Amino acid sequence: MTNDSPYSESLAWFQRAAKVVPGGIYGHTTPSNMVPGAMPYFADRGAGCRYWDVDGREYLDYMCGYGPIVLGHCHPEVEEAAERQRREGSCFNHPTKRFVELAERMVELIDFADWAVFGKNGSDMTTWAMQVAREKTKRRKVLHVRGAYHGTHAWCTPGKGGLVKEDRAQIETFTWNDPASFLRAVRRWEGDVAAVFLTPYHHPLYTESVLPSPEFLQTIEATCRQEGIVLVLDDIRAGFRVDLGGSHRHFRFNPDIACYCKALANGYAISAAVGRADLRVAASRVFLTGSYWNSAVPMAAALKTLEILERDQVLPHLKSMGERLADGLVKAGAKNGLRVVVSGPPAIPFLTFPDCRNLRWNQLFSVEMAKRGVFFHPHHNWFLCGAHQAGDIDETIQAAEAGFAALAERVAPARTASAV
Amino acid sequence: MTNDSPYSESLAWFQRAAKVVPGGIYGHTTPSNMVPGAMPYFADRGAGCRYWDVDGREYLDYMCGYGPIVLGHCHPEVEEAAERQRREGSCFNHPTKRFVELAERMVELIDFADWAVFGKNGSDMTTWAMQVAREKTKRRKVLHVRGAYHGTHAWCTPGKGGLVKEDRAQIETFTWNDPASFLRAVRRWEGDVAAVFLTPYHHPLYTESVLPSPEFLQTIEATCRQEGIVLVLDDIRAGFRVDLGGSHRHFRFNPDIACYCKALANGYAISAAVGRADLRVAASRVFLTGSYWNSAVPMAAALKTLEILERDQVLPHLKSMGERLADGLVKAGAKNGLRVVVSGPPAIPFLTFPDCRNLRWNQLFSVEMAKRGVFFHPHHNWFLCGAHQAGDIDETIQAAEAGFAALAERVAPARTASAV
Repeated sequence: MTNDSPYSESLAWFQRAAKVVPGGIYGHTTPSNMVPGAMPYFADRGAGCRYWDVDGREYLDYMCGYGPIVLGHCHPEVEEAAERQRREGSCFNHPTKRFVELAERMVELIDFADWAVFGKNGSDMTTWAMQVAREKTKRRKVLHVRGAYHGTHAWCTPGKGGLVKEDRAQIETFTWNDPASFLRAVRRWEGDVAAVFLTPYHHPLYTESVLPSPEFLQTIEATCRQEGIVLVLDDIRAGFRVDLGGSHRHFRFNPDIACYCKALANGYAISAAVGRADLRVAASRVFLTGSYWNSAVPMAAALKTLEILERDQVLPHLKSMGERLADGLVKAGAKNGLRVVVSGPPAIPFLTFPDCRNLRWNQLFSVEMAKRGVFFHPHHNWFLCGAHQAGDIDETIQAAEAGFAALAERVAPARTASAV
Repeated sequence: MTNDSPYSESLAWFQRAAKVVPGGIYGHTTPSNMVPGAMPYFADRGAGCRYWDVDGREYLDYMCGYGPIVLGHCHPEVEEAAERQRREGSCFNHPTKRFVELAERMVELIDFADWAVFGKNGSDMTTWAMQVAREKTKRRKVLHVRGAYHGTHAWCTPGKGGLVKEDRAQIETFTWNDPASFLRAVRRWEGDVAAVFLTPYHHPLYTESVLPSPEFLQTIEATCRQEGIVLVLDDIRAGFRVDLGGSHRHFRFNPDIACYCKALANGYAISAAVGRADLRVAASRVFLTGSYWNSAVPMAAALKTLEILERDQVLPHLKSMGERLADGLVKAGAKNGLRVVVSGPPAIPFLTFPDCRNLRWNQLFSVEMAKRGVFFHPHHNWFLCGAHQAGDIDETIQAAEAGFAALAERVAPARTASAV
């Protein structure tokens, strides 16, 4: 059976992996989070906005490594900067000049930032930010939006395994775009709220992305100022794809700390947090380190990535390409009698079918698109990168017309039924 | 004043850093953890067992990036393997073949391992291992040795800032090499102990390293088996420097999970955990992921590093060079009337002066050695790497004779006083 599949090499490597790794592949790239057996499991190489799987199949890449690839795979200038640093070395007993230069760059780029620190994962930064808020306020409670993703640490992981009740004893939730729900939470824990965590827009698992209402943001910001609560922006998913100065500028609010990761270094392992001056002392009191946290290569890659994002006006390009993609998909769906909604910022689109209440149509559509050389995730928002050009988008739309047609054929009885 | 210092460039870059980073440099490489003003703060480049600071001063490197550099800076074969992978790309929507190959290699290398997983930091793995143990046992308590370092997450960080009491509500301690203390802790929390964490030898901050007594290890292992407690080996500091099959082989005990990081990929950012078959299901239930955790370049570097460690018999070489260094230091100290003790495994030596109760002599000695082109940390164990050759060690000893002489001159009154 394996040999008949277009993904036979992926399946063969998965069989090897399953012998030596719990679940074969874990985390966000697990096949059980895609469509098992009908999409690739292992990547081989990438270039620009395309990658090849271990079966040698080529894909237009609309996941970009789940976000880090913001300029395209193996971007020549980023690679050259990384390579130049690599020749000098990366992991030392001290930081390098790149550490200072990158901190200076972050402080220059982010309007409210007085300081910056670096880690390796998004979770490193969100958890540390929580501790900084507690250190600053000497309070315990942390509020976040129900269904928001802030990382894999015990206080916020979407996983259920291995938790104890203390992990979340001081974590409370409120509802996205519901100022009253937020205010109720603050009042309930009055005087004990250290931090509020916000993503710049709401991107819950499996459902449409939702942009923030101005009233929601204004209520949160004003309340945090009034109550001395630290407002933490988790900009890990959207950062440097929506606004080069941080996504809070696009949505017009002012956090106290912001956390970045994915798009910062075009795939090199680095995350960052920046914060206001009045949190500097608290920040210096929360121990923060890791074996490779001073590594110079990812910092050199980040400096070059930020330079290119600004110089080449990549973010307006991402918006324009994202809009072209969304328009094309909606029209291609309509041609095939399918209602299609694309939500979220154009550079980070999420596709849903309002006439399908579960994600089955997304799955069928993603499988059809993978067959046609386009990698669309069935359950997770997608990511555009600077290498996507109008021709790539148009090629994608053309494939999508066929993909929607195949989907329409598969789901025709269901559509008829629901139309009755 | 700055311009007179041999570290004037380090100080100048630190002044820049202090403007945009809380504390200027945080974490384990902070100057306040060395001798401020009298040792370098920023590194510029490295090659083999040497590195250069931003003032252009050259050092024989006995910290090796606090451990990751196990073959020497910019090892040509590791860099070539990394570079080959880099050209294909690193950060994708899926893992690559390197992921499977490295998991297979870890399972082959570590005798008790049935599976492997990867992260970016040591803390990623120790915290996840704790959760796997809780998932497996459905118990809450975690025991570790007082003064042991298991990372920076709230349950174990040596930092004091930003913690709440729930962070440690289920964490209990016992005393190194004291089986009775261990048994008391197990009895006190009988039926509720999920995991015991052990480093292979004890390396507390600021004091001598202590090897394990066989009775201590036997008591822990037997008790864990009997009580169904998961025995987690934190081999992050010592792994792949003491025994290529894991440090438990050298010290003759059998853990259930082991965590690795530092020496795995010669400075490339990766950590790993391996475990027994009976923990596989629990391991698959604890969510584990990060934006860059599938990155292929560090995995390619790890595969090549492990290959070279085995092929070139690097670990026996580290032991031999470490013994040569320790012998030479003890003799060079004695020549100058100074008692010197070198503790810990030879490849991970820790130097103390039994006639100095605080670390002042360590600081003075490290400052003298830095002047003479040798980087010895005053408060932390050192690390040997495969690039250290007999000639480098002898050059170090020669410098140490002068360094000890300078120290002896500074501390002569104190020594006379203590001899009275």
